[in-house]
Amino acid sequence: MADWDHTPDIHREDRLGFDEAVFCLQKRPDQLRRILADADERGRTLLLTRLSAEQLAPLPTSYRERIDYDNLSHTGLFGSIQAPASAARVATVSAGTSDAGVAAEAVRTLRYYGEACHEIQDVGVAGLWRLLERIDEIRRLPVIIVVAGMDAALPSVLGGLVPGAVIAVPVSTGYGVAAEGRTALNAALTSCAPGLVVVNIDNGYGAACAALRMLRSLRPTEPTEGGNMPHG
Amino acid sequence: MADWDHTPDIHREDRLGFDEAVFCLQKRPDQLRRILADADERGRTLLLTRLSAEQLAPLPTSYRERIDYDNLSHTGLFGSIQAPASAARVATVSAGTSDAGVAAEAVRTLRYYGEACHEIQDVGVAGLWRLLERIDEIRRLPVIIVVAGMDAALPSVLGGLVPGAVIAVPVSTGYGVAAEGRTALNAALTSCAPGLVVVNIDNGYGAACAALRMLRSLRPTEPTEGGNMPHG
Amino acid sequence: MADWDHTPDIHREDRLGFDEAVFCLQKRPDQLRRILADADERGRTLLLTRLSAEQLAPLPTSYRERIDYDNLSHTGLFGSIQAPASAARVATVSAGTSDAGVAAEAVRTLRYYGEACHEIQDVGVAGLWRLLERIDEIRRLPVIIVVAGMDAALPSVLGGLVPGAVIAVPVSTGYGVAAEGRTALNAALTSCAPGLVVVNIDNGYGAACAALRMLRSLRPTEPTEGGNMPHG
Amino acid sequence: MADWDHTPDIHREDRLGFDEAVFCLQKRPDQLRRILADADERGRTLLLTRLSAEQLAPLPTSYRERIDYDNLSHTGLFGSIQAPASAARVATVSAGTSDAGVAAEAVRTLRYYGEACHEIQDVGVAGLWRLLERIDEIRRLPVIIVVAGMDAALPSVLGGLVPGAVIAVPVSTGYGVAAEGRTALNAALTSCAPGLVVVNIDNGYGAACAALRMLRSLRPTEPTEGGNMPHG
Amino acid sequence: MADWDHTPDIHREDRLGFDEAVFCLQKRPDQLRRILADADERGRTLLLTRLSAEQLAPLPTSYRERIDYDNLSHTGLFGSIQAPASAARVATVSAGTSDAGVAAEAVRTLRYYGEACHEIQDVGVAGLWRLLERIDEIRRLPVIIVVAGMDAALPSVLGGLVPGAVIAVPVSTGYGVAAEGRTALNAALTSCAPGLVVVNIDNGYGAACAALRMLRSLRPTEPTEGGNMPHG
Amino acid sequence: MADWDHTPDIHREDRLGFDEAVFCLQKRPDQLRRILADADERGRTLLLTRLSAEQLAPLPTSYRERIDYDNLSHTGLFGSIQAPASAARVATVSAGTSDAGVAAEAVRTLRYYGEACHEIQDVGVAGLWRLLERIDEIRRLPVIIVVAGMDAALPSVLGGLVPGAVIAVPVSTGYGVAAEGRTALNAALTSCAPGLVVVNIDNGYGAACAALRMLRSLRPTEPTEGGNMPHG
Amino acid sequence: MADWDHTPDIHREDRLGFDEAVFCLQKRPDQLRRILADADERGRTLLLTRLSAEQLAPLPTSYRERIDYDNLSHTGLFGSIQAPASAARVATVSAGTSDAGVAAEAVRTLRYYGEACHEIQDVGVAGLWRLLERIDEIRRLPVIIVVAGMDAALPSVLGGLVPGAVIAVPVSTGYGVAAEGRTALNAALTSCAPGLVVVNIDNGYGAACAALRMLRSLRPTEPTEGGNMPHG
Amino acid sequence: MADWDHTPDIHREDRLGFDEAVFCLQKRPDQLRRILADADERGRTLLLTRLSAEQLAPLPTSYRERIDYDNLSHTGLFGSIQAPASAARVATVSAGTSDAGVAAEAVRTLRYYGEACHEIQDVGVAGLWRLLERIDEIRRLPVIIVVAGMDAALPSVLGGLVPGAVIAVPVSTGYGVAAEGRTALNAALTSCAPGLVVVNIDNGYGAACAALRMLRSLRPTEPTEGGNMPHG
Repeated sequence: MADWDHTPDIHREDRLGFDEAVFCLQKRPDQLRRILADADERGRTLLLTRLSAEQLAPLPTSYRERIDYDNLSHTGLFGSIQAPASAARVATVSAGTSDAGVAAEAVRTLRYYGEACHEIQDVGVAGLWRLLERIDEIRRLPVIIVVAGMDAALPSVLGGLVPGAVIAVPVSTGYGVAAEGRTALNAALTSCAPGLVVVNIDNGYGAACAALRMLRSLRPTEPTEGGNMPHG
Repeated sequence: MADWDHTPDIHREDRLGFDEAVFCLQKRPDQLRRILADADERGRTLLLTRLSAEQLAPLPTSYRERIDYDNLSHTGLFGSIQAPASAARVATVSAGTSDAGVAAEAVRTLRYYGEACHEIQDVGVAGLWRLLERIDEIRRLPVIIVVAGMDAALPSVLGGLVPGAVIAVPVSTGYGVAAEGRTALNAALTSCAPGLVVVNIDNGYGAACAALRMLRSLRPTEPTEGGNMPHG
Repeated sequence: MADWDHTPDIHREDRLGFDEAVFCLQKRPDQLRRILADADERGRTLLLTRLSAEQLAPLPTSYRERIDYDNLSHTGLFGSIQAPASAARVATVSAGTSDAGVAAEAVRTLRYYGEACHEIQDVGVAGLWRLLERIDEIRRLPVIIVVAGMDAALPSVLGGLVPGAVIAVPVSTGYGVAAEGRTALNAALTSCAPGLVVVNIDNGYGAACAALRMLRSLRPTEPTEGGNMPHG
Repeated sequence: MADWDHTPDIHREDRLGFDEAVFCLQKRPDQLRRILADADERGRTLLLTRLSAEQLAPLPTSYRERIDYDNLSHTGLFGSIQAPASAARVATVSAGTSDAGVAAEAVRTLRYYGEACHEIQDVGVAGLWRLLERIDEIRRLPVIIVVAGMDAALPSVLGGLVPGAVIAVPVSTGYGVAAEGRTALNAALTSCAPGLVVVNIDNGYGAACAALRMLRSLRPTEPTEGGNMPHG
Repeated sequence: MADWDHTPDIHREDRLGFDEAVFCLQKRPDQLRRILADADERGRTLLLTRLSAEQLAPLPTSYRERIDYDNLSHTGLFGSIQAPASAARVATVSAGTSDAGVAAEAVRTLRYYGEACHEIQDVGVAGLWRLLERIDEIRRLPVIIVVAGMDAALPSVLGGLVPGAVIAVPVSTGYGVAAEGRTALNAALTSCAPGLVVVNIDNGYGAACAALRMLRSLRPTEPTEGGNMPHG
Repeated sequence: MADWDHTPDIHREDRLGFDEAVFCLQKRPDQLRRILADADERGRTLLLTRLSAEQLAPLPTSYRERIDYDNLSHTGLFGSIQAPASAARVATVSAGTSDAGVAAEAVRTLRYYGEACHEIQDVGVAGLWRLLERIDEIRRLPVIIVVAGMDAALPSVLGGLVPGAVIAVPVSTGYGVAAEGRTALNAALTSCAPGLVVVNIDNGYGAACAALRMLRSLRPTEPTEGGNMPHG
Repeated sequence: MADWDHTPDIHREDRLGFDEAVFCLQKRPDQLRRILADADERGRTLLLTRLSAEQLAPLPTSYRERIDYDNLSHTGLFGSIQAPASAARVATVSAGTSDAGVAAEAVRTLRYYGEACHEIQDVGVAGLWRLLERIDEIRRLPVIIVVAGMDAALPSVLGGLVPGAVIAVPVSTGYGVAAEGRTALNAALTSCAPGLVVVNIDNGYGAACAALRMLRSLRPTEPTEGGNMPHG
Repeated sequence: MADWDHTPDIHREDRLGFDEAVFCLQKRPDQLRRILADADERGRTLLLTRLSAEQLAPLPTSYRERIDYDNLSHTGLFGSIQAPASAARVATVSAGTSDAGVAAEAVRTLRYYGEACHEIQDVGVAGLWRLLERIDEIRRLPVIIVVAGMDAALPSVLGGLVPGAVIAVPVSTGYGVAAEGRTALNAALTSCAPGLVVVNIDNGYGAACAALRMLRSLRPTEPTEGGNMPHG
């Protein structure tokens, strides 16, 4: 009774250009094992997100050995993943130490789907010089994933400085009215910088998928020669 | 005292690729007049959003005549705007009659910046056949702006069917727990379709700017020949 | 002092057609033991909901042996329960793995009261083909319990496709603005599909009771011969 | 530009057993006129909800004369509607004067679809005798729509006394923490009476559609002879 | 540094008629020990609320032996407490098992201050006969503390049936939109029964103090002879 | 159709000691007229709350002349009301000008039921000397209704200084996070002064009914001779 | 009855260093007249905040002529106000046009109390160059009032660049999740820049009073010679 | 991959007058170790906030020995800190035992930056005499940090009695509608005492930084001789 029925969305790759990831939070060992067995049988790779070390431990060695696990992002890549074919077309920009895990989830998702990523960390606006020093580097990439908690001032500042697509990922750090990321989310949605887009709190995976949609449907234009930020 | 000081972000076009729009909500007639005079003097065009007919009426005839005003979207285009240079690369897809105004704000913003738009209306999921009949048409475009209020099921369904970038605009229609668009917003952010991105409630302008960021930084790939939705 | 006084609603079956279930969350072992002893004495069966394995363990063997416990739904059926007298008149339809436990609570409640149930799992709208493949199957049943978390798009889509009574059960899965099921709840309440009804978050038991109210007061009409979904 | 595109869900009646109603709130005169013209042409009837007297006034006389308008529920029935074929199978039960309009919306919706309705008003639980005096009358009907604002204690009390399907409609009356119906909604959803189902705040129309789904898919059982409430 | 400074409100009894209780939640062992030592020295009794068994254990035996601890209400009475001087003038009425602990906190607080209490349990409105059977008993007392979670329909029903002062204590039981007692709180505050008063969620102590304020400033009138509820 | 059915709770006075008031907000002229006619016929008095001058104007002169209307509290007393039989046993204490209307609703309700009231205004804690100057005056009364908006610090301060029953009425004044009285409500509910009780925002009527319940069930004790606040 | 009792906090200036302002929102004409008469009699000046032109109009000419009214900030200064004795020690910095009114309320309050103010407008972070061009100017002042709505990124950026006291005033502009200033408020409270302080939404008056408290209790240190922002 | 990149804001002291503190909540041991090593190398001191004993334990002895750890405030001072150069210019005033930890965080932050602090505890307004006894002591200091949870009445009362800068720190104590400090926060923001400023819930560190901004930019005026509170 109440037997668990697994129906993966096997046509997703055809429809969307990327396959279905496995969101592991609250999945039981037997469920994970069955999902891995199913992938193994079909000879498919898998992206596992929100996978804790505790969930990983009881899996059969034969599976565990084939999972490239990252402790910061809590992601696992099952099967052999291709190296990125081109230079990074996406940057992740994060504000502080607490945002590193969410940024890493985006990086790992992109990696799984064959995209390299340019990572920039610890450039929160309280010390604005850190961001300004690296802004030309960021401006050269067509898609920017910006990861910030608390007041999420970084997406607003960045959105006013770079011309590319800016995807804001609010983060559930902080305390009090940080409200587990809702303040960061709302700040990103009401940003005074035009044309920012936003995903759910802590959703590094979703931001990466959004970047993939853009990169698969569109093709980067030639980098503006020079490319440095105009005065002002 | 308390004299109003107007400092437009004149370098925005250089930095971001599009100039600063004028958000007219709650602006007084003298403020609007001054903004128009300033643009007139510099020989610039202007996009005016959230401009009510009541705000338009008292403006000097010489300005009013040069504003192409649209009553559905409450937008005005000041000065002469170029016709789109290419076929539509963006679709707007909206669920019901109440969403038409917000979708139109996106269309008009794109038009101001020289992008044509493919408009699809009244395809809410309660009558799913309406969306399925037009899904191949939508799939051919690299950027989709999907506009929906209430439970915002449309972005989820669409996001599962099309490979392009999908920008959801929640709409403040409905009553009770529709909560002036917050339910639509939250539903879009927690969509089970991967890689949707979201802008603020009723922010058709912001969705269009996000599309522009993508189209300026990236270039559409060739349309998949055939392009129809694969089975499933 | 502060002695605990147990007054079961013994006339409920006469009034409503089903007896009082025992909601076990936060009940202490001595309370559960007393409730079971009381039922034992009167020769009654019991439906125990939200019963954890930890609560079950310390119960006397004589009781534990007579409890049919299900780990997915956290329900226990005490005493001997009659097999369903007729074919399934209710379907449970759930979106993803995380919804399975809540759907199972509905199934088990129906089973306790002698109703069979047609279970359909893993048909979330992000892979719409999964639902469309099974829609005729669902349409044949007069009462549908649809279980979905996150953005709860499934009730809206389903509500637009089936003529029967549709009871939506929002689920507290997800993170960020999923807000422990409140987004799913609000989305279901503002569904654009007409005539959906909704119960509390994670309340599979309540949905089953609602189905029972319908099935006891009304009687299924003959299944529409053919019964397939008309075009569109 | 931004031309309004009307695509009614013309297959809805085939799929669901009832056609699409017109939600008039915020619809402009030209939109209403076009919808009426379209229905007129096809020889169809229409249910218009949330139609204000102000919206009605500017419509062409030829249309206005064929609209049976009710000022309490703000509904209009366009075209000639059949009288109910059977005695009432649904009761509406409302708590106070402020709930009358919402209850009337349910009554009118049922009437449009050919269902008579047994209306019981002003039986709020603060004067419990009023409800108890009429409880046997209510118990005889298989579907009960209960309409209540503020603390919504009525659905809980009623749900514990009647065996039929109980659909609660929270109402946006009251002030302070009544919170425009959210307290009534939440109270109905957490009712201690088992198996209540709930629709959105003020959604009399939705409650009626839910009743229709039940009455079309199921058939009332014979009224329990006697039918009076058992002791207790 | 950061030495903890204890300044009990020693004049409170003179001002308010009852002394300061010790709210133990989150107090550390050394703080509790110091408070008990201080009371011991002055020869005072103490009411300790929200005192867990874990906090009690490490206290010196000499103190622990003089604490009358109750596990249901998590209260401790330190020192020797006088027996109530009169028959009960306050009733506690609670809806279900989950409300018993909060009701017990009120009972114990009254006991500490020398008031007996008439306890009535398990009379939730879903089985209304349980309340109606005992209503005359409740009506005889001038002050009623009514304890209920979820939808808190009990205070409304009771408030419409008894003439005395009714103090509602919402309880943080339930799940989903029960919202840790906020729905019960809001329902009690918007009750359609006139003249209910409300205290914070789970605040049995506060309800008892409110009762004490009434009983110290006012004096019970003679019980209405007969005293039974008039018809209706 | 949808005819409005008026069923006053005619036994309320027998049950609770006071009759049903008429809450006029959103009642239409014909409803008010019918309620007044009904009372006239039965020779009863009426308390009308939330009655606007706009609602009063169109009533027949014969009714209007018998309504004692107060513009500050928006209350009307219909019929001839008895003068209070005793000196004031209730005080209303309000913080600022904005609280005056709500306090007046309490005063008028008490007046209707024959209770005099001691009114103290403009004693907000920002100028604490104003309250301290009058504290002995307030301490002499057994029931205090304290009316305050914004941060509602007044109930906390007062609750720490007076021994009588303290009923807090939060007021919907202020802006920003005053949140239409919710901050005042929450502050009153979490007051550090023990034994405060609270009613809904702006509910002066409810506070007065609560006072009536106390005064009818209990009898004031003799005023403490002296009665001044003890030192501290 | 219900006569309005005016008790100004006449000792406030002695206690706090500034007198009581008159918050005019929702005050009736007769109340304003009486307050002005009272001030006139005592020969005092008055600061009137949230005073609308509609409230001003019906006042007696003799009063109106002595009110210096400002339409942007909705403030009135009654009586003759001293010119500032020193150069500006406070700066107001605002993000956009919509913030101008709130900033002006702060400026006018400071002016009433004899403080000049350095006003900087339209320096929102979406066009960061505007702020950076003026940052040395701002750094020279010991107290900064920063006024911003929407995502309130300006306080964070500014707080990271200036050493003085920074008082953030969130503004209720924007739409959707701007939530009438709550997002700006929460963003300011969770700012990553250390030591920002915050006042209620739109509370320019309160920010000015906070500045006054600082300037009265402390004395500006000598401006850092040079004073320009160090590199970084 | 996902290597953690540490970029401290090394110029902060030059810009703001105080260096960057280390917020330790959720930092891993390796991150803390690296931060300490970096500071050690540069010969810098560090303020560590939200540092738990569990995080402290695994650090190398050489670092642990140089951390002055305080268990009440969960702060650590690394390196040798200078003694305060002047008498206390800041007071911390806290309401109850639960507020002591947050007040201590402010005290320790000030100590780290060389400011002494005058600490006043346990003066909640429920026993007002405790505050009034010490008010002259508090009035002598130019900057007051007031720490209070629950209803936060203390900042309002204090703000009406002292002329200095008052920084309110709401605390996340309490239960029910205390809502983890949000009620205290909102009460402080809507205080009727003019010119209070507020920081995030539990943010003792932020309040201290705000005090530092004031003390660095301004210089205390001579204490008012006498300095006692004027009458009233």
